[in-house]
Amino acid sequence: MAVIQMNLMSSSLRLSTDVSIILPFFSTHDYAAGRVPRMFPEKGEKYQVLWLLNGGAGFEQDYIHRSNIVRYAEEHMIAVVTPAGYNMNYDDHDPGMKMCRYVGEELPNVLRSIFPLSPRREDNFIGGYSMGSNGAQKVAVRYPEQYAAVLGMSAGSFNVRPKGEARRRLETGLPMPPHKPDEMEENCRILEAAVLAGKKVPDFFLIHGENDIARDGSVRSAAFLRKLGLNVYLEEVPGVGHEWDLWDPVLKRALSELLPIRHGLVPA
Amino acid sequence: MAVIQMNLMSSSLRLSTDVSIILPFFSTHDYAAGRVPRMFPEKGEKYQVLWLLNGGAGFEQDYIHRSNIVRYAEEHMIAVVTPAGYNMNYDDHDPGMKMCRYVGEELPNVLRSIFPLSPRREDNFIGGYSMGSNGAQKVAVRYPEQYAAVLGMSAGSFNVRPKGEARRRLETGLPMPPHKPDEMEENCRILEAAVLAGKKVPDFFLIHGENDIARDGSVRSAAFLRKLGLNVYLEEVPGVGHEWDLWDPVLKRALSELLPIRHGLVPA
Amino acid sequence: MAVIQMNLMSSSLRLSTDVSIILPFFSTHDYAAGRVPRMFPEKGEKYQVLWLLNGGAGFEQDYIHRSNIVRYAEEHMIAVVTPAGYNMNYDDHDPGMKMCRYVGEELPNVLRSIFPLSPRREDNFIGGYSMGSNGAQKVAVRYPEQYAAVLGMSAGSFNVRPKGEARRRLETGLPMPPHKPDEMEENCRILEAAVLAGKKVPDFFLIHGENDIARDGSVRSAAFLRKLGLNVYLEEVPGVGHEWDLWDPVLKRALSELLPIRHGLVPA
Amino acid sequence: MAVIQMNLMSSSLRLSTDVSIILPFFSTHDYAAGRVPRMFPEKGEKYQVLWLLNGGAGFEQDYIHRSNIVRYAEEHMIAVVTPAGYNMNYDDHDPGMKMCRYVGEELPNVLRSIFPLSPRREDNFIGGYSMGSNGAQKVAVRYPEQYAAVLGMSAGSFNVRPKGEARRRLETGLPMPPHKPDEMEENCRILEAAVLAGKKVPDFFLIHGENDIARDGSVRSAAFLRKLGLNVYLEEVPGVGHEWDLWDPVLKRALSELLPIRHGLVPA
Repeated sequence: MAVIQMNLMSSSLRLSTDVSIILPFFSTHDYAAGRVPRMFPEKGEKYQVLWLLNGGAGFEQDYIHRSNIVRYAEEHMIAVVTPAGYNMNYDDHDPGMKMCRYVGEELPNVLRSIFPLSPRREDNFIGGYSMGSNGAQKVAVRYPEQYAAVLGMSAGSFNVRPKGEARRRLETGLPMPPHKPDEMEENCRILEAAVLAGKKVPDFFLIHGENDIARDGSVRSAAFLRKLGLNVYLEEVPGVGHEWDLWDPVLKRALSELLPIRHGLVPA
Repeated sequence: MAVIQMNLMSSSLRLSTDVSIILPFFSTHDYAAGRVPRMFPEKGEKYQVLWLLNGGAGFEQDYIHRSNIVRYAEEHMIAVVTPAGYNMNYDDHDPGMKMCRYVGEELPNVLRSIFPLSPRREDNFIGGYSMGSNGAQKVAVRYPEQYAAVLGMSAGSFNVRPKGEARRRLETGLPMPPHKPDEMEENCRILEAAVLAGKKVPDFFLIHGENDIARDGSVRSAAFLRKLGLNVYLEEVPGVGHEWDLWDPVLKRALSELLPIRHGLVPA
Repeated sequence: MAVIQMNLMSSSLRLSTDVSIILPFFSTHDYAAGRVPRMFPEKGEKYQVLWLLNGGAGFEQDYIHRSNIVRYAEEHMIAVVTPAGYNMNYDDHDPGMKMCRYVGEELPNVLRSIFPLSPRREDNFIGGYSMGSNGAQKVAVRYPEQYAAVLGMSAGSFNVRPKGEARRRLETGLPMPPHKPDEMEENCRILEAAVLAGKKVPDFFLIHGENDIARDGSVRSAAFLRKLGLNVYLEEVPGVGHEWDLWDPVLKRALSELLPIRHGLVPA
Repeated sequence: MAVIQMNLMSSSLRLSTDVSIILPFFSTHDYAAGRVPRMFPEKGEKYQVLWLLNGGAGFEQDYIHRSNIVRYAEEHMIAVVTPAGYNMNYDDHDPGMKMCRYVGEELPNVLRSIFPLSPRREDNFIGGYSMGSNGAQKVAVRYPEQYAAVLGMSAGSFNVRPKGEARRRLETGLPMPPHKPDEMEENCRILEAAVLAGKKVPDFFLIHGENDIARDGSVRSAAFLRKLGLNVYLEEVPGVGHEWDLWDPVLKRALSELLPIRHGLVPA
């Protein structure tokens, strides 16, 4: 097991930015279990990758600090990459940071040139909680053939209000650049075009808590995705809200049962 | 010697943000020199503090990575604090991060409630390189009674063009929020008002390289400050430009000879 | 909330050593709950502290990586300090690192001189898992008046074999300095002497899994402690073994219900 | 430019251990110079590597904290890897950590399976200061065909006393496992055997300060190596001793002029 804190100079962000990378290999788990450890990838083997985006007010180490993702990654032999989100709503700002391009293009290119991370669609998964869930869906529809599945925890990104319904002003108090007023509609249009063009698009796993402020958006987004004919898993977890007591157990289940991962290295 | 990487949730930034803190105490230097080490501050003793702001494209660990500031701090028994600058030009953005307020108010308040850092004017110094030099001067004139001196390396912040001179568009390519068009004029007005009001204002140490893109701004700012009657040290270092080969040696000299520091702890 | 990675030069270890420190204050939790946050300790207020020692093969960030201790600390307003254990079994080695003295003396002295950590007995708790559980008990009996309680997860330290029983060679394969053959007996003697001398000694919370390799040692140690008249809480958690699926939930319960903590700052 | 802090579970050390890795690519240097940046290694390209070992009382981030190695690596496009030394004198201890095997075998194997680091002899260089210089030479003679050159700063490892001369007890006060009494002789024998067997052995660059406690050992070791017919560069730097004011400038010169490096990536 390796936990890596990396700072890299990004050209999309024009900033020295932090990213955390979890790479499972020889582990205390193997050791305690008396297993002859499989030490690390052999020539040509690669890792599957789960890209995880943090929520508002958070940072790239949120998952390590606030969930047991290190153990889950180790147990299921999948690399986990968590970039810094900077409250930027994972948009490409002009002028400003190109967050979507950074997550969907630059970071995968850089990391695949350094680490043995599989570039294949079926080996890549993207997810997040809250603003990071929105980010994961935003990136996924713009780079649809890059990800096999999206794990959206506590935020839907296709939550278009019915005509005539008053716009609910999102008063997060966060100093994010203001949400684009039509970001949901844009997500929908881009995804519809991708489906029409016959592109492969990821499966969607949308999970929210019973008391989640994002409950409505999650449900409504699932309905939109289903109408498009996509594979959608929608779940409401009873008794919890918009919180880590939801997201930590969901991450565990995502790797153990929900996502179609290999639970092992990708052969050469 | 302790080198601290801290992540804290900031209310001014509404972001979990990184800050590095260097606290000198028992050191390999003491050890190698056979000195009975002074281990750490005793009851009531405090550190003097040099607040250092990073430049464009950089991050809070730039000083640790790219200079020998750890050794200089250790040798001169002064704490060094480096917050993350995020390409924000140390402005208060609306909506957005309040960078100036964070550096000048929130961070000192938080850190002084946790660490033994002296809050007194004569024990606090603020500096930076490039965008961080601009930031240091910007913060210093808005909180003038908080700092004994400013160390501006490779950028002046009072560099007002003479009337009629064409505005030179700053094409940094950086995705910073655009510079406020009148930020220099605003700095001048605020500082003039402070002087008029009889406030204590810091001494200014402005240093640039012979081949520095910031040469002109540094010289012109020194002239403005001198006209205001302030104490100004201006130096041009031959043979270097806008680069760490200038800033690392200047940091060494700042602590060993330029800044009026105690070279020791502040007594209770 | 602040999560701090600190490297300090230790005189007991004669090594630049890492320690992690979790300090709860303004939090995303407060923020999401719409609470006016209590930002940080005011003049004279201090934190209660849980000192947590890592197990064999581990390191100081194990608790952050492999449990949700950051969230539990935040929720219950207690500082958590995790020093690096180096497979040293928390003994004072000669020649070599003085691990027990470092954890029980030097580190508390250094950190209390830097951070607002309460030095009072009733505000300090020490715990660990596996080798770290042994370490916590070892340190606690040598500095008995320093800790209100010990949280021993998956290891007892008073596990003296009955006379005539064959010595079970501890074949951990770990390259720790070999266990002192009589370390258990020594722990017993030291603790008995402390009780006889009328010293305050901590309460003991010993918890192990049903399938835990440390089950026997935990039970036997509890019996010894009870015979001495001490307050002992012993629990066997069904269905788990020597693993984080035991330790993470126990840490949560330790802070929410088991340990006699304040769930708030210590008033001045 | 990427600076990586990695924690990995090592089987030679049976410990979760820290290692720092500097990988140069797109840089602020490129950016400031207006160069179209070469972003990162393309398919099959690899980095040359300088392995740097820390001295007594130090840790793996010493080079980053106390020298400008990040900038030198960036400028000369070479990866730098700094493992943690733990005051273990880079010996294989029994029982205990196998430090020499870790540095010479396990760590290269692990890192080359993860990062694009060239495994070829002519692309690998090992160095250190003080105890780390001794470690670099110790590892190099045991894995002689793995390194093109050794950079020994302030310690020679073939410093055998003339017959009859009293053994100078090395009273470092450090809690290292005691030096093996014949470690110098062993180094000599192993290297002589390698030369006799016709193995390629590295070139040696031995540099010490005029006032260096290691002056004598450095000079004497150079004499031994020359008598063996090896390529030896010996230099005494005037005016400095056993200190970073020697080692930082030597690192700069090592990469800019002394070591036979490519100043660029290794082609596929």
